[in-house]
Amino acid sequence: MTNELLQNAQWYAESFAARSLSGEPALHVAVVACMDARLDPRGLLGLRDGDAHVIRNAGGVVTPDVIRSLTISQRLLGTEEIVLIHHTRCGMLAITNDEFRERLRADTGMEPDWEPGAFRSLEQSIRQSAAQIAACPFIPYKHSIRGFVFDVETGSLEEISLPQLIAR
Amino acid sequence: MTNELLQNAQWYAESFAARSLSGEPALHVAVVACMDARLDPRGLLGLRDGDAHVIRNAGGVVTPDVIRSLTISQRLLGTEEIVLIHHTRCGMLAITNDEFRERLRADTGMEPDWEPGAFRSLEQSIRQSAAQIAACPFIPYKHSIRGFVFDVETGSLEEISLPQLIAR
Repeated sequence: MTNELLQNAQWYAESFAARSLSGEPALHVAVVACMDARLDPRGLLGLRDGDAHVIRNAGGVVTPDVIRSLTISQRLLGTEEIVLIHHTRCGMLAITNDEFRERLRADTGMEPDWEPGAFRSLEQSIRQSAAQIAACPFIPYKHSIRGFVFDVETGSLEEISLPQLIAR
Repeated sequence: MTNELLQNAQWYAESFAARSLSGEPALHVAVVACMDARLDPRGLLGLRDGDAHVIRNAGGVVTPDVIRSLTISQRLLGTEEIVLIHHTRCGMLAITNDEFRERLRADTGMEPDWEPGAFRSLEQSIRQSAAQIAACPFIPYKHSIRGFVFDVETGSLEEISLPQLIAR
């Protein structure tokens, strides 16, 4: 399959207008979203090349690696606003950390030193993600942290209200 | 700025055809790429909704969170191929871990418990990222791990050769 994607990359390069965009995102926004194949942060938010950082992992949850990426995004590359996106029918709702860890132990005889990142509620996970950013001393800009749930079936985006403590 | 992006999201929802795509990526591919605003993995690889997982962080380096995401991608959601994408003019080439850590210490009086993730060579970082995946007991499919550097000025994608140990 990768070879087919490389054919697409060749077409992409052929129609690419040579340019010299800045590494600093033009909109000064960093998006943190789930890796899910049905979620297209760029299309959803109308982002163009050069507009925003897009950070993605399983669940779109805030982990130490997301904290690292946001710290670099804000301190080295000038972003100031953060947009968190979870989505309906997320795989992280279908497992529990204990079950998944047990499954890995059964299959491999080893346990990971990371949390699987399962959650029971999209809204709660968005709030916890925002709270972790708010609590991080390395991330300087916290005046615009907003969280959303994307509906993979209807395409709509719903904002999740955050406690005052976070949304300041 | 976020409010303007939300206007785009509303247009996106209005033109969205209601659907019920599977959470399992149709191409069984997971992409690991840098968060950089000039890199559009979807456009570059010609991905459509539902095709592939896209995991992104500062540098596109393989961290414990990427290992977590790939483990979930392969074990819960059926992907088997991995595509790593770094890019020219990456911000992670412009710093060193020690310098960045010192800068955080000077500004905040604290040090992060994560590595900043700087690297000196795109090729070397791609190889190290692939090697970390190859060495991970939780990731079952390793027959197709391939690494690339995207040129943000020309739009071309160059493959990085991986040692036989990794590319098996």
